[in-house]
Amino acid sequence: MSDVRVLTASEVAAHASRESCWIIVHGKVYDVTDFLDEHPGGSKIILKYAGKDATEAYEPIHPPDAITTNLPPSKHLGVIDASTLVKVVKEVTEDEKRRQALMAARPPLDNILNMHDFESVAKMVLPEKAWAYYSSASDDEITLRENRLAYQRVWFRPRILRDVSSVDWSTTILGQKSSLPLYISATALGKLGHPDGELCLTKAAANYGVIQMIATLASCSFDDIIDAAAPGQTFFLQFHTRYVNRDREITKKYVQHAERRGVKGLFITVDAPQLGRREKDMRMKFVDDDAGAEVQKGQDVKKDQGVARAISSFIDPSLSWKDIPWFKSITKMPIILKGIATGEDAILAYEAGVQGIVLSNHGGRQLDTARSGLEVLVEVTTALRKRGYFPDPKFEIYVDGGVRRASDVLKAIALGAKAVGVGRPFLYAFCSYGQEGVERAIQLFRDEFEMNMRLLGARTIDEIVPEMVDASSLSSHTVLTPDDKLFSEAYQPLSLAKFREAKL
Amino acid sequence: MSDVRVLTASEVAAHASRESCWIIVHGKVYDVTDFLDEHPGGSKIILKYAGKDATEAYEPIHPPDAITTNLPPSKHLGVIDASTLVKVVKEVTEDEKRRQALMAARPPLDNILNMHDFESVAKMVLPEKAWAYYSSASDDEITLRENRLAYQRVWFRPRILRDVSSVDWSTTILGQKSSLPLYISATALGKLGHPDGELCLTKAAANYGVIQMIATLASCSFDDIIDAAAPGQTFFLQFHTRYVNRDREITKKYVQHAERRGVKGLFITVDAPQLGRREKDMRMKFVDDDAGAEVQKGQDVKKDQGVARAISSFIDPSLSWKDIPWFKSITKMPIILKGIATGEDAILAYEAGVQGIVLSNHGGRQLDTARSGLEVLVEVTTALRKRGYFPDPKFEIYVDGGVRRASDVLKAIALGAKAVGVGRPFLYAFCSYGQEGVERAIQLFRDEFEMNMRLLGARTIDEIVPEMVDASSLSSHTVLTPDDKLFSEAYQPLSLAKFREAKL
Amino acid sequence: MSDVRVLTASEVAAHASRESCWIIVHGKVYDVTDFLDEHPGGSKIILKYAGKDATEAYEPIHPPDAITTNLPPSKHLGVIDASTLVKVVKEVTEDEKRRQALMAARPPLDNILNMHDFESVAKMVLPEKAWAYYSSASDDEITLRENRLAYQRVWFRPRILRDVSSVDWSTTILGQKSSLPLYISATALGKLGHPDGELCLTKAAANYGVIQMIATLASCSFDDIIDAAAPGQTFFLQFHTRYVNRDREITKKYVQHAERRGVKGLFITVDAPQLGRREKDMRMKFVDDDAGAEVQKGQDVKKDQGVARAISSFIDPSLSWKDIPWFKSITKMPIILKGIATGEDAILAYEAGVQGIVLSNHGGRQLDTARSGLEVLVEVTTALRKRGYFPDPKFEIYVDGGVRRASDVLKAIALGAKAVGVGRPFLYAFCSYGQEGVERAIQLFRDEFEMNMRLLGARTIDEIVPEMVDASSLSSHTVLTPDDKLFSEAYQPLSLAKFREAKL
Amino acid sequence: MSDVRVLTASEVAAHASRESCWIIVHGKVYDVTDFLDEHPGGSKIILKYAGKDATEAYEPIHPPDAITTNLPPSKHLGVIDASTLVKVVKEVTEDEKRRQALMAARPPLDNILNMHDFESVAKMVLPEKAWAYYSSASDDEITLRENRLAYQRVWFRPRILRDVSSVDWSTTILGQKSSLPLYISATALGKLGHPDGELCLTKAAANYGVIQMIATLASCSFDDIIDAAAPGQTFFLQFHTRYVNRDREITKKYVQHAERRGVKGLFITVDAPQLGRREKDMRMKFVDDDAGAEVQKGQDVKKDQGVARAISSFIDPSLSWKDIPWFKSITKMPIILKGIATGEDAILAYEAGVQGIVLSNHGGRQLDTARSGLEVLVEVTTALRKRGYFPDPKFEIYVDGGVRRASDVLKAIALGAKAVGVGRPFLYAFCSYGQEGVERAIQLFRDEFEMNMRLLGARTIDEIVPEMVDASSLSSHTVLTPDDKLFSEAYQPLSLAKFREAKL
Repeated sequence: MSDVRVLTASEVAAHASRESCWIIVHGKVYDVTDFLDEHPGGSKIILKYAGKDATEAYEPIHPPDAITTNLPPSKHLGVIDASTLVKVVKEVTEDEKRRQALMAARPPLDNILNMHDFESVAKMVLPEKAWAYYSSASDDEITLRENRLAYQRVWFRPRILRDVSSVDWSTTILGQKSSLPLYISATALGKLGHPDGELCLTKAAANYGVIQMIATLASCSFDDIIDAAAPGQTFFLQFHTRYVNRDREITKKYVQHAERRGVKGLFITVDAPQLGRREKDMRMKFVDDDAGAEVQKGQDVKKDQGVARAISSFIDPSLSWKDIPWFKSITKMPIILKGIATGEDAILAYEAGVQGIVLSNHGGRQLDTARSGLEVLVEVTTALRKRGYFPDPKFEIYVDGGVRRASDVLKAIALGAKAVGVGRPFLYAFCSYGQEGVERAIQLFRDEFEMNMRLLGARTIDEIVPEMVDASSLSSHTVLTPDDKLFSEAYQPLSLAKFREAKL
Repeated sequence: MSDVRVLTASEVAAHASRESCWIIVHGKVYDVTDFLDEHPGGSKIILKYAGKDATEAYEPIHPPDAITTNLPPSKHLGVIDASTLVKVVKEVTEDEKRRQALMAARPPLDNILNMHDFESVAKMVLPEKAWAYYSSASDDEITLRENRLAYQRVWFRPRILRDVSSVDWSTTILGQKSSLPLYISATALGKLGHPDGELCLTKAAANYGVIQMIATLASCSFDDIIDAAAPGQTFFLQFHTRYVNRDREITKKYVQHAERRGVKGLFITVDAPQLGRREKDMRMKFVDDDAGAEVQKGQDVKKDQGVARAISSFIDPSLSWKDIPWFKSITKMPIILKGIATGEDAILAYEAGVQGIVLSNHGGRQLDTARSGLEVLVEVTTALRKRGYFPDPKFEIYVDGGVRRASDVLKAIALGAKAVGVGRPFLYAFCSYGQEGVERAIQLFRDEFEMNMRLLGARTIDEIVPEMVDASSLSSHTVLTPDDKLFSEAYQPLSLAKFREAKL
Repeated sequence: MSDVRVLTASEVAAHASRESCWIIVHGKVYDVTDFLDEHPGGSKIILKYAGKDATEAYEPIHPPDAITTNLPPSKHLGVIDASTLVKVVKEVTEDEKRRQALMAARPPLDNILNMHDFESVAKMVLPEKAWAYYSSASDDEITLRENRLAYQRVWFRPRILRDVSSVDWSTTILGQKSSLPLYISATALGKLGHPDGELCLTKAAANYGVIQMIATLASCSFDDIIDAAAPGQTFFLQFHTRYVNRDREITKKYVQHAERRGVKGLFITVDAPQLGRREKDMRMKFVDDDAGAEVQKGQDVKKDQGVARAISSFIDPSLSWKDIPWFKSITKMPIILKGIATGEDAILAYEAGVQGIVLSNHGGRQLDTARSGLEVLVEVTTALRKRGYFPDPKFEIYVDGGVRRASDVLKAIALGAKAVGVGRPFLYAFCSYGQEGVERAIQLFRDEFEMNMRLLGARTIDEIVPEMVDASSLSSHTVLTPDDKLFSEAYQPLSLAKFREAKL
Repeated sequence: MSDVRVLTASEVAAHASRESCWIIVHGKVYDVTDFLDEHPGGSKIILKYAGKDATEAYEPIHPPDAITTNLPPSKHLGVIDASTLVKVVKEVTEDEKRRQALMAARPPLDNILNMHDFESVAKMVLPEKAWAYYSSASDDEITLRENRLAYQRVWFRPRILRDVSSVDWSTTILGQKSSLPLYISATALGKLGHPDGELCLTKAAANYGVIQMIATLASCSFDDIIDAAAPGQTFFLQFHTRYVNRDREITKKYVQHAERRGVKGLFITVDAPQLGRREKDMRMKFVDDDAGAEVQKGQDVKKDQGVARAISSFIDPSLSWKDIPWFKSITKMPIILKGIATGEDAILAYEAGVQGIVLSNHGGRQLDTARSGLEVLVEVTTALRKRGYFPDPKFEIYVDGGVRRASDVLKAIALGAKAVGVGRPFLYAFCSYGQEGVERAIQLFRDEFEMNMRLLGARTIDEIVPEMVDASSLSSHTVLTPDDKLFSEAYQPLSLAKFREAKL
């Protein structure tokens, strides 16, 4: 430990070419020459920092341990002598000034009345790249929007004249208390949008008794988040399958570390053997760097595909059902499969002995025109029920994607979900207003739960029964016959009574 | 009675702080210090009038007896010596000037051809707060609009070659004659929109033989309305459950007073144990007072939620089926439950021995994505019929929400309704044109009834049978698959033949 | 006959008041004093011409014999001495100049590629009142548009590899040859849009072997039209029930006169016991005359309701099934009931022994939200077939409303129609381009028939069979769930690749 | 051969009238006097070039051998002495300058992320006539758009936890290897959009192992394309039925020549006995030449109907099932019928012994409101299966129309297609970026296939099974009930929280 090599800035600066490329990240010096062509984000972006400190660019889009995990120890050259580094005074760009002006003009937090308000603020105040990465989804973003719209195809059948003086919307998730029937679902790269990243979620969750699911691709490291927790605060861990078969030992260590640190559930992502094509994200890349580029001959499509691809090269597409017993052998945490999309796979999951499933399409970011979790929920409970697998208190079903209102959550619960995951709304809340934004979001949900349970005639979560919803239109996928353009154009619509010209 | 204390303006003005807060309302002085924190509209708005006359602000949004009912007699300090009050000359604001100019430019009343015209005029000429309060509905206002759209899913099957020289669209409602198969449904706070408030309805209803339902939350007091009635004029009373279990004696007195004054039906609201979140109304609040406010930490969401919340704190959420027998014991008026939304509750209502039900979702102002009354009507008649409860001349079914045309009413009647309630259109009519607006609205309905019954081949209300409508699409809830944006953008629509440039 | 009184302009001018009101129409002088209050268009419009020549205003909106039929002979005062009339030099208004400029800039006729083009030209070049009268429909004009859209719910199942070298789309209608499987349906008041009125249709129909249905409310008199016919040209007569029960003798004379003049079919309108409310038409009235009027108290709605009401007062709403035998007794012409809208009434019609029915909703101008003729067609053929009444060569079924393409006609024929009626497209054609417009319209239809029959694999009208269409979506009436406005607004749509700024 | 007559430009110029009309095409001189009235594009366009060199106008819109085939040898007068021709210096028009500027500003090729991007670039950079010809479809272009939208009515049911480390999307089509489960479908007149025409496709297809279907109406001649092929490159031939019954010998020679040159499949077009009316294309004609023309009396509609009609006069509408055995007798190539649209005709095709069918509506260019190939696919497999004809490895089913994403292809394969045809996207790709555009398009497809097969859980084409899609909404044809315009206009939508004015 004492023989760590200390390097100066000028020593590093001497290695600033494709032939020998050193970079500094978090105060350490790495030789990335051999790694240049393996870098999922392409070599170009690394070479931009060759011989320099790359921390600022590295930080928000890499998991903290990405570089150490991917480079052999021999390429960990040593630490930089900080005193030799010239502090770069970064000029504030016009774009950044615009953003800051908008930030100052944000609506006051108590004007935020619903989750959409957070999204609309985030759209304005986020750096373009962050907005593109967070908001984008795969191909035509049809599933992204379908996730929301599915809730509009379920209607309430409220009951009346029940004494609803007191209503209680708390529940348990995997046996853990939760003040709301929802959890904060994993979203990646929180520091792209707020300097405190996912810690904003952690603190708000603690204050309001809400469970946070930590993302594998969080900007804050797992331990930083756990270290910031309140006593007894509950966490789940979203686990990306990137390490599994490449190196079982790393996976085992990682999972067992999480268990030791008190994580109460391991949510294994099963719908992302490869990260989806997200064109908003991909366009962002081009706008920045390639706007003036010549048409390049024979260039391969895979390169330069935005943030999503930049962080996904290590995902292991070989994960399969036969790996599940091994996971069960290395941990006592409940195991949940996140990304189930059919009744058939729900049955396989039940029979594989896991503790739950999340009906999810990854927020619309993977297979476009996959169905919404809510629609799949009806198929799944029907399939499980046929086999006698549902209901079963030891096997919980969650849904995520598109939830914006407490009424959405109540619909999912009526149809058989134990709880729902909410991701982007909380992400947009902290990007726009930090921890307080997340707290406001939770308060809004709480207020809506009180209201809607009263109006629905349900005093507790258990009283929310299937008969309280009409889901008969849920699996209709309606597309309009193309319009008769000439007819519509020739038709002159009716108009309302007209005012005379007012003297204003 | 002779020992009422008389106070001067300066005495009152001495109590203008949170520590001691007196206000004047309708010439009386009240000590509201202890009440500040209980006030549903928040203490801030009261403190604005501490030590002053609050009548003008109080009047349109409180039922006349709100303050006397909520303050113990010991806080009723006495009467103000009017001569000591300085008359405040209110400056006319720019907004008010604009409104008055628009009022002067309104379309002449005979240009108003349908109910939508009234709404469109009201939108322009109402004070913003009144418009927000009247027009708003809960959450995303989906049910508000669904109420209207449900009528578009029912189509006519008109019969021909019947002698329709004379057609008669009069009917009875709860045994009372009605010149139209509809009644004026209860809407609250009429003085926000017109200085005469609900009296505009009363006088027009008298002239045209239409029944008015008086709202608990009317701006005009119950007795003022009854006092203004024509001889033999029929009224119903909408009864909000706010008093029931808190003080049965108050409720009893109130109900029996109504019966004594000749009210012919008690419509108990059962879909509002708590008033809905109405974001248009809530935003109005913020725009007025908080536009420049700093983000407030930890502030509770419940405060400052617009007019709706300001008037609803005393609503009793404990009202339940077991209170119905008590109501039956205190009055001989027919009892109708307003806000039934399922076949199950319709059966319970029938079995509870009430005289009728209103299939209603409170004009979309309570549980969003609850179904329309019209859709529920089919479910309810089917459920009742199965038990042999329908048809039954002693149990009437009404529908409200979304009615804008006589054809809508005819559809509801064909599907089993005895009559429909019409609220906002009449409200907008008197806000825009006073009593004459309401009369015009009634005339328009009358004219449409004549026309449509002839065209439908029905000479009397009884001849309007289920076979005259095709309601097979009524319970479809269609949501479009998200559009293929790139395809639509790349597609170039056809265009019509083009004119050459005309020499105009 | 020789003792006809001759009056001078000044004699007439002396009777220019409500107390004594004379007017000149077509060179004759009438005393209309007693008629003022009976005039369906109101007395105001007559008084405008009191003591003057009213011909120009009278002509386009009254059937030629309206005045003689409605006034007793004693009020026919005599003829005017034309030399005493001062020729009024009418100033050309700005509006009229604008119209003429647009007329001059019309697209050349060979740029007109479809029926919509005619409508779009007519919308620009017609006087506002004429456009409002022609294009308007009842209430919300939902049925008007539904008529068109119904055709979009029927899809083709074309057959291939049939020798379609020669295709023949001619047919017979009521035994009369027709070069196309459609007829020109009756539309009223053609002179509002073109000085030659319906004669434009007559001449084009003659040239192309198409059958014209003459409207009771045509601007050209029945005899003028017949006089202009080519030898052997076929006509049908649309008969409005206005005279039937008021005076059977007038009806009988009228019908028998038509038969004598060679009319081949009597189409009795059965869907218009009263003319619909047409708000576009009603608004036009207000814009002209009442824009500045004060709100009038207690004014009855019925007055001043546009052109449609102005011409409809004599319609007899008592016509019923029991009048049909009488019609059969007075004529040998085939009798067809126009305006059947249900299977039930189709059965009654068949059993009443008429020769055919038109499934029609009067072009959307009567009962709004009545179904389209095309949708009714499936119900009607099913109902008739069940009784063994269909197919029957002696009972023909027609459909009208919304037809714009030959493909529409082929769909109706596949579903059981013998032919279809086409009204507004031909009306717009002659308003825009006179007789040549109508000929172009017929040519376009002909061209489309050739094309579409080939592509459908049908060589003759008889080969168009039900299996050639998929009408399974025809009776779906889809209304969208109200949109989630906040979600849509917060969502940022994808965009296409962007061009750099081009140096243009 | 040696006695070919050589003519000078002035000799030709002497024949520049309707009475004697010579033109030069590709260096040869023809006497077209007798042909003027037979020319499908009308005589006017030929007369414009009377006595001159017409090559430039002739080339892109005629198949290379059109003139030689249609004129008797006696009218082939000889060759032109090139030295006598005056080189015309063509002035670059403003439109052309605009196009070239846009071409220079095109998005760089690596910004193109999907097929829509190509279309959107093509729309900007193509000459108006080419865009109109390529993009247009018949009548209201409803089928054109329906082709795309049908794919949105099929949703995925992806399977998870399968080892998808390696996925393979190659397949065979008619026994030929194909690197993708799609082929480049025939599109006509490629030189309208790019000087190299269809050769761009040929070269890209060679580089990427994709099969190209050669169009009868290609701008490049059949032999030019085959000559440019890489060794072993696979082609299919789309065969238009224009020659069949007019002269069987020509057809036989043509087909046998194709077989000798190695074509692997003969796709006989069966849905185009006459070319559709394409109004965009027809309007283009008018805009160019007739904008100022007087309304022409009695002009026949058939003339001047755009490019489509100009090239289609020789199509033989008599082709029928009884010609199929003859085709089988003259070639050993697999025969495929392109344009099947019903289960009935699929059965006839199977029984006629052909090797496959293409479910197609000719890209929406023939019978409008014909159903999409994808929808027909379900009907066809069901019909064939009932007879035991499906699946059958010797009878392949293809689908074309509307494919823009690999996910579309996977849906068609899941529903029973062997492969799909992709036409316009590749056409737009080469019009915008030449051969490299086509290669980019193939790369994008390849990338999407890798992604989507992984996400779908299918490792090979064979693993794509019907259970992977939910096609239950596929045959719904939804048309909206006309909107309640007044209601929508009177309703005031919700809005999001507002920013204060930002200091930007």
